[in-house]
Amino acid sequence: MTRPLGVGVIGCGYWGPNLVRNFAWTEGSRVVAVADAQLPRAEALATRYGIPNIYTDAADLIADPDVELVVVATPARTHYPLTLAAIESGRHVLVMKPMTTNAHDAADLVERADARGVMLAVDHTFVYSAAVRQMREMVAAGDLGDIYYIDSVRINLGVFQSDVNVIWDLGPHDISIIDYILGGQEPTEVAAVGAAHAGSLRENVAYVTLRYGPQLLAHVHVNWLAPAKIRRTIVGGSRQMVVYDDMQPSEKLQVYDRGVTIAPWDDPEQVYEQLVSYRTGDMRAPRVGNTEALAVEAEELVACIRNGGTPIADGRAGLRMVRILAAAEQSMRHGSHPIELVNGRALTPLVMDVPTNIATKADGANTATG
Amino acid sequence: MTRPLGVGVIGCGYWGPNLVRNFAWTEGSRVVAVADAQLPRAEALATRYGIPNIYTDAADLIADPDVELVVVATPARTHYPLTLAAIESGRHVLVMKPMTTNAHDAADLVERADARGVMLAVDHTFVYSAAVRQMREMVAAGDLGDIYYIDSVRINLGVFQSDVNVIWDLGPHDISIIDYILGGQEPTEVAAVGAAHAGSLRENVAYVTLRYGPQLLAHVHVNWLAPAKIRRTIVGGSRQMVVYDDMQPSEKLQVYDRGVTIAPWDDPEQVYEQLVSYRTGDMRAPRVGNTEALAVEAEELVACIRNGGTPIADGRAGLRMVRILAAAEQSMRHGSHPIELVNGRALTPLVMDVPTNIATKADGANTATG
Amino acid sequence: MTRPLGVGVIGCGYWGPNLVRNFAWTEGSRVVAVADAQLPRAEALATRYGIPNIYTDAADLIADPDVELVVVATPARTHYPLTLAAIESGRHVLVMKPMTTNAHDAADLVERADARGVMLAVDHTFVYSAAVRQMREMVAAGDLGDIYYIDSVRINLGVFQSDVNVIWDLGPHDISIIDYILGGQEPTEVAAVGAAHAGSLRENVAYVTLRYGPQLLAHVHVNWLAPAKIRRTIVGGSRQMVVYDDMQPSEKLQVYDRGVTIAPWDDPEQVYEQLVSYRTGDMRAPRVGNTEALAVEAEELVACIRNGGTPIADGRAGLRMVRILAAAEQSMRHGSHPIELVNGRALTPLVMDVPTNIATKADGANTATG
Amino acid sequence: MTRPLGVGVIGCGYWGPNLVRNFAWTEGSRVVAVADAQLPRAEALATRYGIPNIYTDAADLIADPDVELVVVATPARTHYPLTLAAIESGRHVLVMKPMTTNAHDAADLVERADARGVMLAVDHTFVYSAAVRQMREMVAAGDLGDIYYIDSVRINLGVFQSDVNVIWDLGPHDISIIDYILGGQEPTEVAAVGAAHAGSLRENVAYVTLRYGPQLLAHVHVNWLAPAKIRRTIVGGSRQMVVYDDMQPSEKLQVYDRGVTIAPWDDPEQVYEQLVSYRTGDMRAPRVGNTEALAVEAEELVACIRNGGTPIADGRAGLRMVRILAAAEQSMRHGSHPIELVNGRALTPLVMDVPTNIATKADGANTATG
Repeated sequence: MTRPLGVGVIGCGYWGPNLVRNFAWTEGSRVVAVADAQLPRAEALATRYGIPNIYTDAADLIADPDVELVVVATPARTHYPLTLAAIESGRHVLVMKPMTTNAHDAADLVERADARGVMLAVDHTFVYSAAVRQMREMVAAGDLGDIYYIDSVRINLGVFQSDVNVIWDLGPHDISIIDYILGGQEPTEVAAVGAAHAGSLRENVAYVTLRYGPQLLAHVHVNWLAPAKIRRTIVGGSRQMVVYDDMQPSEKLQVYDRGVTIAPWDDPEQVYEQLVSYRTGDMRAPRVGNTEALAVEAEELVACIRNGGTPIADGRAGLRMVRILAAAEQSMRHGSHPIELVNGRALTPLVMDVPTNIATKADGANTATG
Repeated sequence: MTRPLGVGVIGCGYWGPNLVRNFAWTEGSRVVAVADAQLPRAEALATRYGIPNIYTDAADLIADPDVELVVVATPARTHYPLTLAAIESGRHVLVMKPMTTNAHDAADLVERADARGVMLAVDHTFVYSAAVRQMREMVAAGDLGDIYYIDSVRINLGVFQSDVNVIWDLGPHDISIIDYILGGQEPTEVAAVGAAHAGSLRENVAYVTLRYGPQLLAHVHVNWLAPAKIRRTIVGGSRQMVVYDDMQPSEKLQVYDRGVTIAPWDDPEQVYEQLVSYRTGDMRAPRVGNTEALAVEAEELVACIRNGGTPIADGRAGLRMVRILAAAEQSMRHGSHPIELVNGRALTPLVMDVPTNIATKADGANTATG
Repeated sequence: MTRPLGVGVIGCGYWGPNLVRNFAWTEGSRVVAVADAQLPRAEALATRYGIPNIYTDAADLIADPDVELVVVATPARTHYPLTLAAIESGRHVLVMKPMTTNAHDAADLVERADARGVMLAVDHTFVYSAAVRQMREMVAAGDLGDIYYIDSVRINLGVFQSDVNVIWDLGPHDISIIDYILGGQEPTEVAAVGAAHAGSLRENVAYVTLRYGPQLLAHVHVNWLAPAKIRRTIVGGSRQMVVYDDMQPSEKLQVYDRGVTIAPWDDPEQVYEQLVSYRTGDMRAPRVGNTEALAVEAEELVACIRNGGTPIADGRAGLRMVRILAAAEQSMRHGSHPIELVNGRALTPLVMDVPTNIATKADGANTATG
Repeated sequence: MTRPLGVGVIGCGYWGPNLVRNFAWTEGSRVVAVADAQLPRAEALATRYGIPNIYTDAADLIADPDVELVVVATPARTHYPLTLAAIESGRHVLVMKPMTTNAHDAADLVERADARGVMLAVDHTFVYSAAVRQMREMVAAGDLGDIYYIDSVRINLGVFQSDVNVIWDLGPHDISIIDYILGGQEPTEVAAVGAAHAGSLRENVAYVTLRYGPQLLAHVHVNWLAPAKIRRTIVGGSRQMVVYDDMQPSEKLQVYDRGVTIAPWDDPEQVYEQLVSYRTGDMRAPRVGNTEALAVEAEELVACIRNGGTPIADGRAGLRMVRILAAAEQSMRHGSHPIELVNGRALTPLVMDVPTNIATKADGANTATG
């Protein structure tokens, strides 16, 4: 039996405790170190999960010889330097989404990880959920036929992140689901529109449109100012359609047989009948497992490191994501005009790839790098 | 006691029977004539509601001396000539949405009706529903504070209209709700993106974005290819937020006290608490009446004709609507770039205001004008 | 082509207009007469549907030679005398539920109708709904396996009927669904418990338990004092289970594959897994038609009269219903002790079969019989 | 600062880990010992939460001098001997529901705990949930007016407990909610009906009726064979009504203004209006906190032990519960006839208070007492 993988987690704020819990409770790994600029947060976690090493400086955690996998759970703008440092120290890395705040940095991390032969993974948690995996399998098996569109809504009353806007914060959930369902296909066009309200300088309501070639349309609505909590992705296909409603306690996936018929206006009986009875097929809600996505992710990463595979959400998925987010940002900064992409890259050289609202943020104290 | 208003309905297809029923059963009006190119359709309605005069030619109905109000319930491209003929004959007119297929015709109808002193109304049915009226009242009373955004979704599996795309068909419902809630304010920018699937030449999935000045964002998702039936409008304000869910049998309106707080990243306890408990205020579902909107509309129109008032959805509301639809169409035809509007009109003279997919449609046989 | 069946409707109150509309609009029948002690109510209906003959005395309608089918839509205690008179005049009869207020009268009507060779039908509307018919077919085809239980809930804030309690008013809906699903099987035991609140003398909250042999348990919750509107019947079987949720706009039927496993307490892993993931099979929502049940019923009755068949809800179904209601009433009047039935009849001779709260009611003025 | 309270947990099966986690993470307590006849289960928990002492024999845990509070999380039939032993050793005790399997044992435990001056608490978890507490406060403050009825449904596909039937297993949740809402009032009558299906010897579908005086009716539906998961309690009052829907992710409590009016049958307009618009007041969904009920419970128990208070769910609440369960069992065993209670006790001396289906169960190996 192999020794458990040594995991070090940088950042003990909102999401950090969930990461610690899952790596602590996954067979095959144990959390050997935590780091946070705010010592009490790190200490509380260490006590609860019996973690031996506690740091206030992320560099010390990265240098800890017991740490084989560094988990970077700090604010977005620190992802690049911390991940880079960990890679250069020969550590495997799991970095929170978004992987970086610009595409250049993301591409650099992918190259460096390849060069050093370490695993680079990004925490696109939803691709590890059972419902999303089932959707991916249905699409891959051709059950849905041609994909017509993907519509994804993730809205609720949320706390405003001072670090990023709602596209960079919530968008990765929906976009990673779309990316995974479509097998990593790159969009050909990205547009976004948003508004910043309630005294925030960053957009808290936004819509992102993705085109994949002339036909396939994907659309994301992310919103921190919505009173109702909705988390729903619809995948419309020529043969079947799927609704993934994450707020449903049990029937999270609903698969509809397609029932569309083109009725000419001059056959009013048929028109009437179909408008009233808007669905002509059955609906099926397949059983969906309920293992915590983060637990599945932790297990996959440990297995990849031990056995050499590539995780679903690897650095390349992280790079694709950042390119899309950066293009959406650019569109939103420039009158919401669509941005064309070729092989995932913007055609016209972007004057500034780094979103100004992130780059210009004054350095805060609330990171492990201090 | 006055003699009931004489109503003539042109077009006995899908929506016509509902119009006939409501004008037949409204006190103060009676249906004296119906017209349809397909005689049996007109006859069936006439038998059911005891309507004396039946025509196959719309012109004959318009000329019928018993007809005081002409209801135009034919395909969109026939709205302009039929409405024009009725106005010129000195009839009051209720025309289905969209009022016309281009803004020029819409403006012309408004002018002509004014000149002839007849009432011109457009069937924006939803502004007569109790839920929408209550929302309008809440907004007008300032209950919601500053309006941040309006998000409206109207999707289901529908029959494809061969006459118009989904924006021209379903869009007027949402846009008329937005227009009414905002008190007839004109948008400053319109953009749209869509896709035509399942063998249709017209878009059956589309997103329309409306900007009202720098801050207020409105967004509409209309879709004939969605497996789930969703009809929901969210109005987000600085003080309260309202969800109007038309699929709910009873609690159609849900009013949320606002509970947004800007939490800095470095106060993780607050971040965590708020993300988990995403709402910090109460929700209230006020009682909503359930009188059929069309019945309220019929009563208002009869009262306006008798007493000289202006209906909520008058010709000017119809014109604003057509301008928005035409701008959305133009955006969708030109790479989904946003179209700027000043006083409701596009800044750059539009080469073609008439949407090609409507204007170029070969003349069908299925209209009363035959 | 045959002459349309002449229908006469007695009682133009709450439900009468729906009956008139459906018989007026059904091919094969026309409404030739209406009767109501309150003349304006009858006149209003007659005007709307073009009905030639109007009566204030039910006896005159029954005697009208154009009337072939008498529809009795008056308060419960008048059902027996009016139905009897119609049968004796050789008319076919459709009587509202409950058919009578005691089992003796119900049995008498069945006998008399047989003797006179006329059709006796009772308005158990729900057995004509598409959802209930599909459930019946599933059960008859053995799809559900052995039926374990039926649980039916019909609650909302309702107006209190001064004529009958909630069991006699709402109960027939659920009990007729149960009766139909079970193919007319007679219960072996009936018990009921209830409470009268809000100043009413009649129970407005009640629970009825039906046993069909030692194994099959059926339970009905009817309630006029519930804030939420629930109309749901669950049929649990050994192979599949069905939920019929009448408040759902589209997925009214949900069919679940069974997934029950008996896990011993000493296998905690399995216990935990199953408690968390409480369903181990798929759910399927078959397409359900949406024709109005009353329209289907009207068509069936016309066809039965013309062609000689027996309607689903015939006098015998009405008799079974009244026996169950009377037994429930008896149980509720006597400490809620269960009442045993043999062949649908109470074992011990009931001192009073007629519920006192109905029999003792002073005669009101609000019936067509005046 | 005081030393944390030493907690020992007997039984590491399904619910045990949740108890351990909450006492481990509550400030003021720490878990010093766990016991389970199956050593690996105890060891796994001990490792995860850093618990120093592990036992296979419950007696050793009770004797452990570090243990001040014994938590009994074993099958129902072992509750009495283990709790008794703990009390006699001067330990405070939290025992899972049902406290015992008969009322005699329950009364004995209450007496003994009083005599020894230790705290006896029973895990009626739901009375510690925020939603139930808010309902209790509303009732106590008179917001609901007179309580008319309480209707509680708790159904889903569950694993069958081999130890107890569904009334003893799920019933305590609903009955403890009812007991708490009514301020510990004793029922005057209890009846139950049930059925055992799917090869089980114990009832897995059951209905329990409780009467509190002549007016107030409470009813519980518990079911392990239901395909849909429903957890809903309705409290109907003369002024307001509350729906507590535990499956709702956010609006768990819905408070309805009452809108019942007694309409005479002879005012059909009013009848019709009210039947269609079944609710005449507003609904309000107050904000409900989402702290885990078990965490609140753990904190309260620690505080009671430290400061000398009485927990909400004390031994007397446990005794009231067992009396109700035993009466329900007796009713179910004797033809479902209602059992009268005076001061919570059955009037006629019960031949057997101990339910046979529990008492006769062969001794299993799966307890810590081995």
